[in-house]
Amino acid sequence: MKRIVTVTPNPAVDLTYHVPGITPGASHRVPAPMSRAGGKGLNVARVAHQLGHPVLAIATTGGAAGQTLAAELWTSGVPHTLVAVAAETRRSIALVDTAGGETSIFNEEGQPLRPAEWQALADAVVEALNGNGAPPAGVLVGSGSLPPGAPEDFYPSLVRLAHDAGIPAIVDTSGSGIIAAATAGADILKPNHHELFEATGERSLEAAAWFLIGLGARTVLVSAGAEGMLAFDHAAPGGYWSARLPEPLSGNPTGAGDAGVAAAAAALAEGITDTREILRRATAWSAAAVLMPAAGEISPRYRELEEQLIVTWKETR
Amino acid sequence: MKRIVTVTPNPAVDLTYHVPGITPGASHRVPAPMSRAGGKGLNVARVAHQLGHPVLAIATTGGAAGQTLAAELWTSGVPHTLVAVAAETRRSIALVDTAGGETSIFNEEGQPLRPAEWQALADAVVEALNGNGAPPAGVLVGSGSLPPGAPEDFYPSLVRLAHDAGIPAIVDTSGSGIIAAATAGADILKPNHHELFEATGERSLEAAAWFLIGLGARTVLVSAGAEGMLAFDHAAPGGYWSARLPEPLSGNPTGAGDAGVAAAAAALAEGITDTREILRRATAWSAAAVLMPAAGEISPRYRELEEQLIVTWKETR
Repeated sequence: MKRIVTVTPNPAVDLTYHVPGITPGASHRVPAPMSRAGGKGLNVARVAHQLGHPVLAIATTGGAAGQTLAAELWTSGVPHTLVAVAAETRRSIALVDTAGGETSIFNEEGQPLRPAEWQALADAVVEALNGNGAPPAGVLVGSGSLPPGAPEDFYPSLVRLAHDAGIPAIVDTSGSGIIAAATAGADILKPNHHELFEATGERSLEAAAWFLIGLGARTVLVSAGAEGMLAFDHAAPGGYWSARLPEPLSGNPTGAGDAGVAAAAAALAEGITDTREILRRATAWSAAAVLMPAAGEISPRYRELEEQLIVTWKETR
Repeated sequence: MKRIVTVTPNPAVDLTYHVPGITPGASHRVPAPMSRAGGKGLNVARVAHQLGHPVLAIATTGGAAGQTLAAELWTSGVPHTLVAVAAETRRSIALVDTAGGETSIFNEEGQPLRPAEWQALADAVVEALNGNGAPPAGVLVGSGSLPPGAPEDFYPSLVRLAHDAGIPAIVDTSGSGIIAAATAGADILKPNHHELFEATGERSLEAAAWFLIGLGARTVLVSAGAEGMLAFDHAAPGGYWSARLPEPLSGNPTGAGDAGVAAAAAALAEGITDTREILRRATAWSAAAVLMPAAGEISPRYRELEEQLIVTWKETR
């Protein structure tokens, strides 16, 4: 099997606190948090690794939080390459109210990388694509936000590196990064519906997805929460595929999109190019992630969920 | 001048996030936090150091958060001895709502130390009291909570070490630690009114303070928020001293109690034993801490505030 290589330029240490009742303005005594190497590309690698696909997770790490991230990633068993940077790795803090309240999340923005550090990150990708005795790469995945001051060209350059190596590229990011990756010819983009509207300025999912394909993207997978997923394919301009469960699942949606990307990456790495099949898998893995308490894991029920999917072609021409 | 030695068995990395509007249940994007070596004994040492008193801050540190604490403490210039422990140093997270909401605090409980680590902490105290060429110790201060599973005897053993070295001991803690330190003959206890009621089960400040003195404490300083401070002295059983400003100050009360302990420690280290004088200084430094944005600092207005104090003897016999 060919390897799934993921790139996470702005990872985070995820600290999850379980607080028995959150009172704004009060002082709370809390147990030590769950600490986990986080970031969308790491979640993608974790899920694919869990399902037996060979992976390599590439990420930056810096400072004391970076050491925590490295230690946790090492413990997880997910093969990885970490690029040392001067800036401290950011944290993401989740406050889970165990007395029945809502979960509040505080994501640090991340700090700028130096030009030489961006180069080192690109070099790590090139090395991974060259293989050097490791299983050959089957797909390259770029995931997540970029730290402030990132080169606009970062995700497009990943797409070019993948294509130069003869493999497809998936990009899952937000904002102008989506536009740049589409223009570079990304094989799959996977925004959620909010990100898609925000990046394109369009008012309908269809118009937004076709806009990205017009720029150069080959396939756009859109996750739309409980509505399931839609797939737009440059080779099928007359409509789109839609996949959803008969009943939406309740659970933890954090990381569901990353599980969908993991499914798409696994499919591409296996040589599957049928958009309908990719959509089925991505929707099922994404739903199976909702059943798990933490991002980066999916429920073993993913096969059963895939059989329940309602997949339809919507002709729109 | 003789040195103030502080002991912090359960320090924390204080992370302060400035959040422009906190919405429970939402995801927030936040700048990197202010990160600071925290814990009550470190705050005491910081304040005394700021005012030119020789200090030594002794604390435990472990894991990646412990490295962050060590790096920040080194940068602060406060002389310190850190005892390495296996358990990761805890964090304390403050979420400051810059859109005018309240500040919410989440204090991790800390993790147990191994018996050999408790011994190493005690050894570091003995070494500090012996001096070995450093300025001689003038007072020993034990501050803050104890990690779970701590020996009940820890603060009492600090009091005995101080007395064996011929110097006074101050203990500022909560719960059963107050009772234990009183029984061991602590020279000054400094609970706030909430801690005093909780530890003694009494309903009046006077009854609670005299109960501690009955156990063996020599002086009990009670911080009572905007009411100022009260001082109960074993040698003056007919009443107590009270000190307060004509008008309460508004500001940040975090660390105000620690500044009061720093004042009391500085006074004892200078050989001042008059309870009224110790109370004046402690109340003034504590009030000057309220004017500062972060714990561990006091406003240069502390002398002016001391002159404004209303100090009265309340005869209660």
